[in-house]
Amino acid sequence: MMLIMKSDATQAQIDQVISYVKASGFQAHISQGVERTVIGVIGDGRIIQQEHFLYLPGVDRAVPISRPYKISSREFIPENTVFSIDGVDIGGPGIVIIAGPCSVENRTMLLETAYAVREAGAHALRGGAFKPRTSPYSFQGLGEDGLEILAEARQATGLPIVTEVMAPEQVPLVASYADVLQIGARNMQNYALLHAAGESQHPVLLKRGLSATIEELLMAAEYILSHGNRRVFLCERGIRTYETATRNTTDINAIPVLKSLTHLPVILDPSHSTGYWQYVNAIGRAAIAAGADGLIVEVHPKPEEALSDGGQSLKPERFAELISQVSAIAQAIGRSLATKNEIQGKNIH
Amino acid sequence: MMLIMKSDATQAQIDQVISYVKASGFQAHISQGVERTVIGVIGDGRIIQQEHFLYLPGVDRAVPISRPYKISSREFIPENTVFSIDGVDIGGPGIVIIAGPCSVENRTMLLETAYAVREAGAHALRGGAFKPRTSPYSFQGLGEDGLEILAEARQATGLPIVTEVMAPEQVPLVASYADVLQIGARNMQNYALLHAAGESQHPVLLKRGLSATIEELLMAAEYILSHGNRRVFLCERGIRTYETATRNTTDINAIPVLKSLTHLPVILDPSHSTGYWQYVNAIGRAAIAAGADGLIVEVHPKPEEALSDGGQSLKPERFAELISQVSAIAQAIGRSLATKNEIQGKNIH
Amino acid sequence: MMLIMKSDATQAQIDQVISYVKASGFQAHISQGVERTVIGVIGDGRIIQQEHFLYLPGVDRAVPISRPYKISSREFIPENTVFSIDGVDIGGPGIVIIAGPCSVENRTMLLETAYAVREAGAHALRGGAFKPRTSPYSFQGLGEDGLEILAEARQATGLPIVTEVMAPEQVPLVASYADVLQIGARNMQNYALLHAAGESQHPVLLKRGLSATIEELLMAAEYILSHGNRRVFLCERGIRTYETATRNTTDINAIPVLKSLTHLPVILDPSHSTGYWQYVNAIGRAAIAAGADGLIVEVHPKPEEALSDGGQSLKPERFAELISQVSAIAQAIGRSLATKNEIQGKNIH
Amino acid sequence: MMLIMKSDATQAQIDQVISYVKASGFQAHISQGVERTVIGVIGDGRIIQQEHFLYLPGVDRAVPISRPYKISSREFIPENTVFSIDGVDIGGPGIVIIAGPCSVENRTMLLETAYAVREAGAHALRGGAFKPRTSPYSFQGLGEDGLEILAEARQATGLPIVTEVMAPEQVPLVASYADVLQIGARNMQNYALLHAAGESQHPVLLKRGLSATIEELLMAAEYILSHGNRRVFLCERGIRTYETATRNTTDINAIPVLKSLTHLPVILDPSHSTGYWQYVNAIGRAAIAAGADGLIVEVHPKPEEALSDGGQSLKPERFAELISQVSAIAQAIGRSLATKNEIQGKNIH
Repeated sequence: MMLIMKSDATQAQIDQVISYVKASGFQAHISQGVERTVIGVIGDGRIIQQEHFLYLPGVDRAVPISRPYKISSREFIPENTVFSIDGVDIGGPGIVIIAGPCSVENRTMLLETAYAVREAGAHALRGGAFKPRTSPYSFQGLGEDGLEILAEARQATGLPIVTEVMAPEQVPLVASYADVLQIGARNMQNYALLHAAGESQHPVLLKRGLSATIEELLMAAEYILSHGNRRVFLCERGIRTYETATRNTTDINAIPVLKSLTHLPVILDPSHSTGYWQYVNAIGRAAIAAGADGLIVEVHPKPEEALSDGGQSLKPERFAELISQVSAIAQAIGRSLATKNEIQGKNIH
Repeated sequence: MMLIMKSDATQAQIDQVISYVKASGFQAHISQGVERTVIGVIGDGRIIQQEHFLYLPGVDRAVPISRPYKISSREFIPENTVFSIDGVDIGGPGIVIIAGPCSVENRTMLLETAYAVREAGAHALRGGAFKPRTSPYSFQGLGEDGLEILAEARQATGLPIVTEVMAPEQVPLVASYADVLQIGARNMQNYALLHAAGESQHPVLLKRGLSATIEELLMAAEYILSHGNRRVFLCERGIRTYETATRNTTDINAIPVLKSLTHLPVILDPSHSTGYWQYVNAIGRAAIAAGADGLIVEVHPKPEEALSDGGQSLKPERFAELISQVSAIAQAIGRSLATKNEIQGKNIH
Repeated sequence: MMLIMKSDATQAQIDQVISYVKASGFQAHISQGVERTVIGVIGDGRIIQQEHFLYLPGVDRAVPISRPYKISSREFIPENTVFSIDGVDIGGPGIVIIAGPCSVENRTMLLETAYAVREAGAHALRGGAFKPRTSPYSFQGLGEDGLEILAEARQATGLPIVTEVMAPEQVPLVASYADVLQIGARNMQNYALLHAAGESQHPVLLKRGLSATIEELLMAAEYILSHGNRRVFLCERGIRTYETATRNTTDINAIPVLKSLTHLPVILDPSHSTGYWQYVNAIGRAAIAAGADGLIVEVHPKPEEALSDGGQSLKPERFAELISQVSAIAQAIGRSLATKNEIQGKNIH
Repeated sequence: MMLIMKSDATQAQIDQVISYVKASGFQAHISQGVERTVIGVIGDGRIIQQEHFLYLPGVDRAVPISRPYKISSREFIPENTVFSIDGVDIGGPGIVIIAGPCSVENRTMLLETAYAVREAGAHALRGGAFKPRTSPYSFQGLGEDGLEILAEARQATGLPIVTEVMAPEQVPLVASYADVLQIGARNMQNYALLHAAGESQHPVLLKRGLSATIEELLMAAEYILSHGNRRVFLCERGIRTYETATRNTTDINAIPVLKSLTHLPVILDPSHSTGYWQYVNAIGRAAIAAGADGLIVEVHPKPEEALSDGGQSLKPERFAELISQVSAIAQAIGRSLATKNEIQGKNIH
């Protein structure tokens, strides 16, 4: 950490800061500029609490030097993390597509959707049994009954299941049905849940919070990774800005930024990041062109009857078009849609 | 809800929308403008899922008419909610001040702070035993040991205790020690936790999420209120914006807006909403001038040694100045600092 | 416009609003919901000032129905606007690439860059002679000398010139040198400048403001179009959000949204929208995949010596890679890089 | 400036950066941490272009140390700037209130408003003759006729005039009528206009841009100050955020932050920063409590007939209440409403 002194800091103040740095067990390194003095606080691997130093007279600002996340950083692990979701590698050259309805509404509708997305080429089925809803008066999901229906769809279609878990005590139950535990945007900093997901050793899809920074997303991943669970992949799903023409603002920059900062696989959710089915395919294409490892997309056979998020769901035919467009974009950048393989789980660190 | 048709919508499309509205059990009310047709969807008290309608050909946008929250709205309950926290009314004319350290670090420090804030005139003691921290490597709180220390401080000073609860299964434990359950910004949409807090029937301090809208804050309150727990008060603690000169941006507008939309008491946290102790008193004064019912403030006897949030904590002397400034501002607008009373719990709806 | 009454509005208040609507020369159309009354204000083509109505007792909110822009809307002109920049069509199937340095620094560097970008396949040369700089102490551009150098580069390479104009009185001068007048993000709502650009009848590249909504961008275009100048194209260049990992947040959603709302050509500036050369190619590819009609990119032969924006400039070799990647993406979606043609200026409305 | 190297930077890369720093005429100062090396670039008063360095291999980030503004900083001039607007000091202990309609609509209405705000206690009259409007179809102001009417109101009431100037060539004309030139939010980075205002030597009210940072506001002030015009005061008028319950978000933090960073007077515009007359008085009180030197408020005798911004304008009676509330708040913090004095123009640096 660097402490930037005020331009009118006195020598006595500078000396006091240096003493305090040393008394805290760190080394102090002084750099004398034309206008200001900068004091480097050289650590020993421990985290340095920058806030302690802001109270010292003469200190203007503190600037962190080290990144606060470790295991999730590409500096720590340079090679891409690649792992298998039921035989399909994520994080490797293949593009992985996860699709399905927002909520599991009933057996018929889920099976119909599962067959349709498999037919179009999806690699996994999404669908919510436990639903975080802004209003206590909205449909809250079918709960365990929804998990049963997902299990049936898995059996019928062979597609692995991605579904959300909302509370720490639900983790064992959801993990007994799902191939991937999804942690939703609203729970990205629900630390009790991150702990439980870390301990489960189950693959985790971690969605970026509504207004989380990229650094905070990596810190949330760190909570899971630090429990020894290394099968984590990240999802950009749009951030909150002042623009109201779309439900969220797709932070497409996050794709190349994340790919450079972390070794974890990164996908994008164009359904939530736009909020309108009309824009989903354009943004799905853009994500792959920008380097994403996959997409998670809402598909519903009859969006106008959906119990949630109908307006952003694709009909199966439109989803089939998306898959074909994504395949063309993938080839343009030297990748292709993922295929099921025999050798699984490479490069889990 | 109003459905705004595209300017080039055909009569057949308009007719189809009307049929769909009626088939969904609502009445349709047509308003023919110069450029566009607007179709009112007249409900029967049920929530209307606007997303269903966005898929119908010719529909441009949907505009909700009713507010999505009920029990928390001033239209539903016009009179201010006033309830007692251990004999001090919140939501009435008196201004309530809650103060204490970010975290309970140890017994000595907490007792020292508790005596200091009581001496200065605080009405309740805050302090975190369970701490949500961005990094898994930061101090996570003393847990139940911290609750024990809070109980001792309560015993010693007579101040009621406000402390955070982070997971549904912690609610009974925390409620057995605390006078007020605090739900933090990161958990404002942790619905499992809101349910548990609602069922506890314990007073709840609900903090606004980092980028929650005012409407979402009221919807989160609705989760608690709809379980029959009516002792909820709200806290503006700064929102996330592009400005980096402060830790957050105090949304001071939220004070008069909330006071007009809801009957629940509203306080402000100038420590988190600014992030720098230098600005806390100015923003604390502003909150009271704008109509807030109280403040929650971080106070630490030695901020430079704090295990969390030291840079935004006031020293006791500075806190005493804040209390005196708040008292003067309160008088300027015809209010005063709250006093302990005998008749408790008026106006809980 | 629809006026949404408060849920407790009295009949007398409703009657007063209706009288006021009629007295203002509009028709009133009443829609009685379960909780609230909505009053449609039916216009006659004049703009309705919604603010007038917010003062009437009992009115809760006003919701506009018509879009505030006309000539720039696709509802007004359904077909794509296509026009020629010195023989290269923009807005048609061909992708147009504009490239060059942030500032014209000197003759040698500009000519070197111009040859390099032409060699790589660019269609036009960008370069600033008048530079808007945050600091009065930064390099402010070469002014008319810079325009002379641009003219020489045009002569030497045959590339048309895109350069910024910062004040209304500069418009004739800049138009005498440039093929396209660029209006920068900071000036998107400089109405005196928009007027002057509209009157010039010169092609205009209008960049979105740092925190302008898509609607405001279209309103700014409307200022130019309403002077009869129909050769306008729009540029997404990143918006300001809370995320600090990049200089701006590329609003990739704006590409399909703009293409659906307006007939004007839309390009993207991945240099400003990311701020780091490392991310420019990924976002340039994403823009084309999302449906953009072109890119404007900063290229500098020696970015580490640039007088402005060096960190986001591509070296010529990297730019050549971008062109080749864009060409592959374009083909994947059935488009291609633009080529110089004989028949110019189709579809100017 | 500090250059933070990547954690895996090689010694050769570090050496290359040091050579480049020295070749650029700066001193290099090396600080070796546990994980990373930091290289201080020690300047000689010249601005250091951090972007140049981002291209060097091994460099991760650059962190500026000096603040980019000079004359506007309190480090440069510690004492408050105080100057007189027609005999009323701004920046001193007295609170200054500027009030009037958004636009000058006609003679009768302006005179009526002018008498009303003087009667209530306002110190200056605001009113727009040239109006920046989002839509080209909205009322654009009366232009020079409006200035004539303002002059008449000045004559009649003795109130000094504050009015907006929108283009550099209007500066002499507007300055010949107005006591204070207002530069609006949309023009905060219109550098040609800032130059012209700087050269005019006329008092300038500079409003913060819709999404300008506090630092950018001070940089814009620097443009004016660097022309030798030291009579500048700043206005917080709300920033753009995701919250839609109000027109803008009042950044109340900006008041104490600006008062600590700059010696220039700071006022707040609660009309624009909220957008609803219902919230204006609460936020006006908050601004004074937070330390603002004054307010600028929209007042209209018949807001429901205003040609612009009616919904946020106060009626004269409500404005009189605001003045009385502000007076009480001012006294609570040891200040008072400004009074006209004899000795003018103290502390212009």
